[in-house]
Amino acid sequence: MTTVDRPSYKVIGTRPIRPDGVEKVTGQAQYGADIRPPGLVYGRIVRSPHAHARILSIDTSEAEAMPGVLAVVTSRDLPTAADKVEELGETAVNLRELSENILAHDKALYHGHAVAAVAATSSQIAAEAVTRVKVTYEVLPPVLDVRDAMRPDAPLLNENRHTKAMDGSLSEKPSNIASVVQFKGGDVEAAFAAADHVLEREYSTSMVHQGYIEPHNSTANWNSDGTLTIWTSTQGSFVVRAQVAQVLKLPVSRVRVIPMEIGGGFGGKIPIYLDPVAALLSKKSGRPVQITMNRTEVFQASGPTSGTHIKVKAGIKDGKLTAVQATLSYEAGAYPGSPVGAGCMCMISPYNVENFDLTGYDVVVNKPKTSAYRAPGAPAASFAIESLLDELVKRTGSDPLEFRLSNSSRENTTMVTGVPFPRIGAEETVRAALDSPHYKSPMEGPNRGRGVASGFWFNAGLQSSVAVSVNPDGTVNLIQGSIDIGGTRASLSMQLAETLGIGYDDIRATVVDTDSVGHNDVTGGSRTTFASGLAVHEAGLDIQRQMVQRASALLNVPEDNLEYVGAEVRSKSDPSKRISFTEIASKSGQTGGPIVGKASLSARGVGAAFGTHIADVEVDPGTGKVTVLRYTAVQDVGTAIHPAYVEGQIHGGVAQGVGWAINEEYYYDEQGHLLNSSFLDYRMPTTLDLPMIETVLVEVPNPGHPYGVRGVGEVPIVPPLAAIANAVADATGHRFTVLPLSPRRIVEELYGL
Amino acid sequence: MTTVDRPSYKVIGTRPIRPDGVEKVTGQAQYGADIRPPGLVYGRIVRSPHAHARILSIDTSEAEAMPGVLAVVTSRDLPTAADKVEELGETAVNLRELSENILAHDKALYHGHAVAAVAATSSQIAAEAVTRVKVTYEVLPPVLDVRDAMRPDAPLLNENRHTKAMDGSLSEKPSNIASVVQFKGGDVEAAFAAADHVLEREYSTSMVHQGYIEPHNSTANWNSDGTLTIWTSTQGSFVVRAQVAQVLKLPVSRVRVIPMEIGGGFGGKIPIYLDPVAALLSKKSGRPVQITMNRTEVFQASGPTSGTHIKVKAGIKDGKLTAVQATLSYEAGAYPGSPVGAGCMCMISPYNVENFDLTGYDVVVNKPKTSAYRAPGAPAASFAIESLLDELVKRTGSDPLEFRLSNSSRENTTMVTGVPFPRIGAEETVRAALDSPHYKSPMEGPNRGRGVASGFWFNAGLQSSVAVSVNPDGTVNLIQGSIDIGGTRASLSMQLAETLGIGYDDIRATVVDTDSVGHNDVTGGSRTTFASGLAVHEAGLDIQRQMVQRASALLNVPEDNLEYVGAEVRSKSDPSKRISFTEIASKSGQTGGPIVGKASLSARGVGAAFGTHIADVEVDPGTGKVTVLRYTAVQDVGTAIHPAYVEGQIHGGVAQGVGWAINEEYYYDEQGHLLNSSFLDYRMPTTLDLPMIETVLVEVPNPGHPYGVRGVGEVPIVPPLAAIANAVADATGHRFTVLPLSPRRIVEELYGL
Repeated sequence: MTTVDRPSYKVIGTRPIRPDGVEKVTGQAQYGADIRPPGLVYGRIVRSPHAHARILSIDTSEAEAMPGVLAVVTSRDLPTAADKVEELGETAVNLRELSENILAHDKALYHGHAVAAVAATSSQIAAEAVTRVKVTYEVLPPVLDVRDAMRPDAPLLNENRHTKAMDGSLSEKPSNIASVVQFKGGDVEAAFAAADHVLEREYSTSMVHQGYIEPHNSTANWNSDGTLTIWTSTQGSFVVRAQVAQVLKLPVSRVRVIPMEIGGGFGGKIPIYLDPVAALLSKKSGRPVQITMNRTEVFQASGPTSGTHIKVKAGIKDGKLTAVQATLSYEAGAYPGSPVGAGCMCMISPYNVENFDLTGYDVVVNKPKTSAYRAPGAPAASFAIESLLDELVKRTGSDPLEFRLSNSSRENTTMVTGVPFPRIGAEETVRAALDSPHYKSPMEGPNRGRGVASGFWFNAGLQSSVAVSVNPDGTVNLIQGSIDIGGTRASLSMQLAETLGIGYDDIRATVVDTDSVGHNDVTGGSRTTFASGLAVHEAGLDIQRQMVQRASALLNVPEDNLEYVGAEVRSKSDPSKRISFTEIASKSGQTGGPIVGKASLSARGVGAAFGTHIADVEVDPGTGKVTVLRYTAVQDVGTAIHPAYVEGQIHGGVAQGVGWAINEEYYYDEQGHLLNSSFLDYRMPTTLDLPMIETVLVEVPNPGHPYGVRGVGEVPIVPPLAAIANAVADATGHRFTVLPLSPRRIVEELYGL
Repeated sequence: MTTVDRPSYKVIGTRPIRPDGVEKVTGQAQYGADIRPPGLVYGRIVRSPHAHARILSIDTSEAEAMPGVLAVVTSRDLPTAADKVEELGETAVNLRELSENILAHDKALYHGHAVAAVAATSSQIAAEAVTRVKVTYEVLPPVLDVRDAMRPDAPLLNENRHTKAMDGSLSEKPSNIASVVQFKGGDVEAAFAAADHVLEREYSTSMVHQGYIEPHNSTANWNSDGTLTIWTSTQGSFVVRAQVAQVLKLPVSRVRVIPMEIGGGFGGKIPIYLDPVAALLSKKSGRPVQITMNRTEVFQASGPTSGTHIKVKAGIKDGKLTAVQATLSYEAGAYPGSPVGAGCMCMISPYNVENFDLTGYDVVVNKPKTSAYRAPGAPAASFAIESLLDELVKRTGSDPLEFRLSNSSRENTTMVTGVPFPRIGAEETVRAALDSPHYKSPMEGPNRGRGVASGFWFNAGLQSSVAVSVNPDGTVNLIQGSIDIGGTRASLSMQLAETLGIGYDDIRATVVDTDSVGHNDVTGGSRTTFASGLAVHEAGLDIQRQMVQRASALLNVPEDNLEYVGAEVRSKSDPSKRISFTEIASKSGQTGGPIVGKASLSARGVGAAFGTHIADVEVDPGTGKVTVLRYTAVQDVGTAIHPAYVEGQIHGGVAQGVGWAINEEYYYDEQGHLLNSSFLDYRMPTTLDLPMIETVLVEVPNPGHPYGVRGVGEVPIVPPLAAIANAVADATGHRFTVLPLSPRRIVEELYGL
């Protein structure tokens, strides 16, 4: 580990036991599907067998007549379904699309699109009832690939959709291209003309899924007083609350979302799918209703990330990257909203390049509506630019890491958005990679190769709200609304312990429901340890101030002569006058009541994340199988609050990136049927497929956070695609531009089959 | 309704629908026994069949060997049971007694005392297993009456207990008298000598139960990480947390108490009985464990209120009450802690009397440890003094209400504690009673009589902590930790609506668990609408301040030129510059993040409560049955936030007081077996036994609360005992001094049987 300029901490940087660990490994942790309200009944979704079809009619009578069936709902039960499109403003259009994705209104837009739902006294009866809902479809030709969808003669998913330009204007003709974004700087044409080396290539990636272990679930109870309670696994209970309230036209305050433990999300558990359906079934049946997706439903109808096509051209002059021009086309799935904008923002951020012209297209296709997936948009963009640079830099004869070192973004380098970076650790990651035992080791043997790649993720700030309650025995309850996916109960408790000078074990953090704390944005964008950490620090300072006030009364010393140091308050002039945190806590009842601190904020000072990865692979020339021999991930992690969690985030990101590079893809037939919607056919890497991933934590503290925290969870998935592809190119002498690098593709391309 | 000097309010004083009403009447509300965590098993308590017995041995082997039995616990499993008494300080002694009452250590001290517990996979197996726990007892003679227990030769419950005097000193000899309190002022002997009329009498009341509908319950899960989750019906989730943590020697932060809806408490759901037992059974069995008492267990082994014996002497000179001397002896039950101190504090508070000498004895007997019961200690004390005054005033020829009017406590009258009253409404209640249609109506017919009585309860303040979260749509979540028994979700929401100028329907109040809000003391002492209301008001002002800050940024007007009026912020100098609460809320994300207000306090400014009641009765001379013909309760309610709830509190208090006066009593045989532990044999009044209770709300705002709130829930139970007894005396010409005035007692005394 390389540490740069970090103060010494008592708790931060240690590796205490994770508070949720025992519960999870002993099976006692309560996930969404574990909740059993009294009277619970079971819901199930009727899904479209067609990728593109008009819904002519839905006959629910036979299902409704089945003994044990308590309710059947279709989009007609959604209050938003009744609205006319024309009457809705911009937000409302998105709301309409959200509503359509929950239960298709007039058209089914992908294989597995929900069209109706049933609730029954057993899951078996519900499964049978699903088959008795009779839907009449008019099957339409689907469009499945982003380039096909962009053709002027492509079948249209929505004949009222026109392409929205950056200035908000709409195209004359309807199109599957929902919108265009562009980031431009300098003069690319002039830079290309002046360059020593220019190269242009096209790259493609497939739609891939986050692959979280726990399927989507929702349990809803429409209470008899008109309020709604939802138990679910989500990355953002407040997002669920807001979206359910909008879709069902309820005031936010009438919806209570109780977040359960979450078995992975990676961005895919931000949108709502089942919650409004379970709610409507509960309203109709008068019973709490639970719906859980099976794995096939998760693949077919949750939110994977975009398949992409990226055309990119770069120029180098005197060893400097002088120009990048690119067109990024991202599949949005059935409704707009691909992460192509984020892809453009991340693509060239590791580099200080003055001339750029990046255009992004958000394109609808007859596949599930995409959702966020770990650093959304960045991996595909990074795969393109980092593959191209690898090829281009080889032509200049430079070492690829030395090239990155001399072209690295630094403090005050401007991003494509025009905003300058604060202190960042981009070049530190490249230097640490150069210095690593891995990079210094020789790469030997036939069919073996080494690749490197850098990556960037901007990280998010957004809103957080926490409260801190001091108990009479001096222990502390930390009340958080940010979902704990990757260890925020620990990382926030550690920051609070550091702020208050007390022990980590004296703090108990709980993720509470939406009725019990102020608004918190999603756990996503690598924001939580940073932004909720900021809030925790502020709440800790609030506690410190109150402790000083109480101590003033107890010690009979004026407040301005007191200071909070360690876990006590003491007189500045006479340090023998002191009183401990625990003693102040025990006397809070007599000195003004409970001591509760809180903070709510829109976080500023987000710190960007950079990583540089090194991959060694061996390619079996007979089968085309790619084996990862060694992998090192270097990352600027700001301050590693709990280094084991940070390493875990890096391991997880790399594992997913390797899967994306080598094996994973959504595989459709020509009619748009998803053919590999199981973990048998959709091949994710297991521990047996991966070497031990070596991590190097570079700590360049984020100046925007009192403890230097940067988001760490997303950037590790960015470099692996290109690092592996570059290693495969090194091993085989053949440049692959289409992912995944599956045995079939390797063999086909190598031998021209 | 008589309203005195009250500002006009928008929301306060209206009668909106109660937020928990629909859920409760439709059976959807979740009470303690409704919770079903996965893997739940059932606990049951082994209870002593003896009122006083040494526990020689407990053989659990046969029970443990039963198929389906997962765990058996005795006091040996309590960490506190191992401690020696000598080693413990004062608090710890109480802790030891708390522990002993939960599972008897060496002695069983009352019929039904818990001695062991089992957990099994079904409640049937648990019930069978209870019979297979073999306890060997050495039966000891019990002592059942307070006067018997005070005799020097009485059997001792605890040979190490010595009487504690006011100065803390201990008696030489061991005793069942746990402690003595005394309140003294002026010179009673001189006043008696100078009085025109002096009378001395003795009064007795029986042990009675609160009679809440929902039996005690607790569901506990000892999580594998060593934390403990408890779902229970309680008046104070934080009290449960604190006591469980102490008894089980856990840090407070490791115990999470989730309060369920509560089916009545009246003071009886403050102590813990089942929670540590369920927790220990869960620890041993590795499963969540639920224990629910049946009605017999509730009567035998929860906390009724004291049987009492009170000797009281009063003197009147020139129509003024000049002296009161009294000895109050209260049964504490098996362990010290009767409300005799409160009885002394309340007894003469309706009157401005200079000379008094009140002595109280807290006495242990072989009955269940008493708990609080609505205005604990006051009804019996009031029964004594108000009966005596009724008899005494008749001798002076005065009207009993005119006597009260001229002797009433007023602002600056000092209490027996020496503290002067702030503005109170004692005499206003007497005047309103005098002016009432009821009192003005004639009392006619044979065997009929009318009685009046006044009563006082001091009300409590204690600690409250709330948070208020403003949602993006302008609705508001009120986060409270005070249990809602009598409507605090409504009464706190109404105060918040008034403070913020928004609608009551825009606020959703939730009672959250102990991990989700700062410390809150019990819902008891009539404190919640007052003290948590103070906190809500303060949190509302916090929101107002933040709204002004946000508006300043949005309107571009300096904060000091802005004011919060109604539900908007506007410029003081240019009222056209304004922005609504809802609009500020919708923009909170861009102006600094979520808007969350909070307040935590130890409440000051408690307002005392006074009531004056009028009862008309008819006594059947053949059967001795007392029928209440008409009943009017006049009460100073401060400001009635939600008048329907206030009236409900008065109805409930009167109904319980009437039951206490006429029918209710714990009935023991000589061996100390409770013979009437069911609602068939323990006769509480039903609606058929009561007339419509007329209420007169006198509103004398409490100057210690921004909206003038006083506690209203307890004082209505204080006057009925004497009001009924005085009416019976009026009807029969015979003065009854022992409650209840059951048919048997009436007939026996009237006819000297």
